[in-house]
Amino acid sequence: MIRVDDALAAVLERVHPSAPVHVPLLEAVGLALTEEVLSDVDSPPHDKAMVDGYAMIAADLQEPHADLVVLEEITAGVVPTQTVRRGTATRIMTGAPIPNGADVVVMVEHTQFLESSGGQPTVRVSDQLNAGANIMRQGTAMRRGEQVLASGHVIRPIDIGVLGEVGTSAVPVHPQPAVAILATGNELVSVDKTPGPGQIRNSNGPMLAAQVARAGGRPRELGIARDEQDELARMVSEGLQAQVLLLSGGVSAGLLDLVPGVLASLGVEQVFHKVHLKPGKPLWFGTLRSEGGDKLVFGLPGNPVSSLVCFELFVRPALARLGGREADRSRCAALLAADHDLRGDRPTYYPARLTQTDGVAQAKPLNWKGSADLRTLADANCLICYPAGNHQFHAGDPVELLML
Amino acid sequence: MIRVDDALAAVLERVHPSAPVHVPLLEAVGLALTEEVLSDVDSPPHDKAMVDGYAMIAADLQEPHADLVVLEEITAGVVPTQTVRRGTATRIMTGAPIPNGADVVVMVEHTQFLESSGGQPTVRVSDQLNAGANIMRQGTAMRRGEQVLASGHVIRPIDIGVLGEVGTSAVPVHPQPAVAILATGNELVSVDKTPGPGQIRNSNGPMLAAQVARAGGRPRELGIARDEQDELARMVSEGLQAQVLLLSGGVSAGLLDLVPGVLASLGVEQVFHKVHLKPGKPLWFGTLRSEGGDKLVFGLPGNPVSSLVCFELFVRPALARLGGREADRSRCAALLAADHDLRGDRPTYYPARLTQTDGVAQAKPLNWKGSADLRTLADANCLICYPAGNHQFHAGDPVELLML
Repeated sequence: MIRVDDALAAVLERVHPSAPVHVPLLEAVGLALTEEVLSDVDSPPHDKAMVDGYAMIAADLQEPHADLVVLEEITAGVVPTQTVRRGTATRIMTGAPIPNGADVVVMVEHTQFLESSGGQPTVRVSDQLNAGANIMRQGTAMRRGEQVLASGHVIRPIDIGVLGEVGTSAVPVHPQPAVAILATGNELVSVDKTPGPGQIRNSNGPMLAAQVARAGGRPRELGIARDEQDELARMVSEGLQAQVLLLSGGVSAGLLDLVPGVLASLGVEQVFHKVHLKPGKPLWFGTLRSEGGDKLVFGLPGNPVSSLVCFELFVRPALARLGGREADRSRCAALLAADHDLRGDRPTYYPARLTQTDGVAQAKPLNWKGSADLRTLADANCLICYPAGNHQFHAGDPVELLML
Repeated sequence: MIRVDDALAAVLERVHPSAPVHVPLLEAVGLALTEEVLSDVDSPPHDKAMVDGYAMIAADLQEPHADLVVLEEITAGVVPTQTVRRGTATRIMTGAPIPNGADVVVMVEHTQFLESSGGQPTVRVSDQLNAGANIMRQGTAMRRGEQVLASGHVIRPIDIGVLGEVGTSAVPVHPQPAVAILATGNELVSVDKTPGPGQIRNSNGPMLAAQVARAGGRPRELGIARDEQDELARMVSEGLQAQVLLLSGGVSAGLLDLVPGVLASLGVEQVFHKVHLKPGKPLWFGTLRSEGGDKLVFGLPGNPVSSLVCFELFVRPALARLGGREADRSRCAALLAADHDLRGDRPTYYPARLTQTDGVAQAKPLNWKGSADLRTLADANCLICYPAGNHQFHAGDPVELLML
């Protein structure tokens, strides 16, 4: 049986970031850039007004007040036509280009418009400002040709603004990997059905789809395959169209655990089967050679909690790397909030609730009924990673956590 | 000018959670339940095998080994037909129902199948287990009628599994609010165009759309409206079809800042205009009476950083409350990482980078060039909230942060 760290390494060495594509700006959030982005503009593109007011020459502001002839009105999007000289000013709006000659903008609140003075529109200005006030110089925030985002950067909503400003309307990224999801088992009915005797609903399929979406994949649920060779082979073949196939169930030692055999018959090469881990031991992993990157196949255990743990430990990092992001497993440390006796021959991932009290992170193990107990797992926000062995852990002991 | 806290209170008192709808399971992630969810099943639905092996009577395990007659094979989804008695066992797969009479399951790894013994299939068992071992009792994890998720709970991927298990295929939730986004300004061109003299690209529209999606809304970009009464009125009317309308630009004191007038002409009542805040002072907020909940209209400043700050402070909490979630503004505390002199008559939200070093949260103010400097803002992960006044802050001073 392979160890968790070795299993993860075996997965990751077979995963490479997907080939770059260009996506529309709004579809780029959460994806990693495949190249650096340079600005094609100065920002601002011209010396611009930071306030609504009058552009003028600072030397005219020496006196308690000055009456200046108004040359023109420059609104945003309009280009000035006149040069400002001593004794004149131009009405200007926030964001508009500063006219030639002007070196300061006085806020409109500090001015008084005089209907006319000798037939010309005139403004009375009373303010003391130095040259440059309320003007943002061309290229202050960003220069044409400057790098604005580095290759590999994962795009956030705010970056959409930056990309928009520099005109990157088609963004070069690693795309979301397509992930097919197939639940297997004669006992399964779909979630909208009422289970008969011996049956349960297929909760794993939708849960995995939601996990895939959250982890940056594009999920496609294929439904339920019976434990029957031909049906299973047909549906697995369909799933192998995707870059990643997640199978749920059928990988234990049961009589109807047909998944490994069917995968082998379809050319999927086993990398490992069974991991030194609780819950999640039956995990199967293999790859299918394919142009444009090998396909990844995870045979997840059918128990929902085992499935979730295997997803967090192995599938999430693989999806991150396919997307060109760091395969971060969000581990952190905390103190145990209560005594906890545990006996096990395998490293155990145990549902717990992390709280922060007075800046101290405390993890409280939940009263968990085993690998089918999804109800208790829903109260958890982390898993405590216990080492293998028989242990009596005490409140205050440091533990490692995998965040959910 | 209204204070930030009063402005937020004025917004929130006009926002009520949207009327409940039912959405398909996979669309429910991130939404808040409008009613509690009860289980319609026991989990497990029957006493079930936790391992693949043989169901038998624990009293038969007293001797070093026992040879037991195999009655039948129970795979998952199949119902047992025979009662287990002393000297007999039933082959059983993980998850399958325990047959009547059996009180223990021995793992297949601890058994040896004997071809026949007196013509009957027989298994040799060598294990020491107490009654109940490897059996999960009906209803251990969850009882029919039990609450599995509370009203108001925000659905995570793991909850999709729980909802699936109890058959909630249509989930009662507050829907994502529809949010229309309209940028205004003669100087704007769309992000796929090259700006001419005096022009800039409309980076705010896409950035706001990305922020809305991240904040749990359903964005719809309406494009760019010229600073022209009729066009603006037509496009604002279209935006008022949505539950929330975000306008970008046109709310300052400029000659072409037509937004407040156009909104008034369309029946939108102003709640406040201008907030004691930097950047973001020109913010306009109003409501339009409507069946099915008043519509909210935010006139955001056109400067991208002002727009972002106003979104974080006012729009995000409003969208959260519309969705039935807590209007959490993700504030936290940190120590200033460097000296910082600041002068201002308004509370100032200043871009900074938060890092954790040896468990200490430190916020470093960035070299920010003012409210149009989106480039520097993209390096920030938080905003430092400075109080109004002229201040000399020192490295190590405690500051409040708004996380981005």
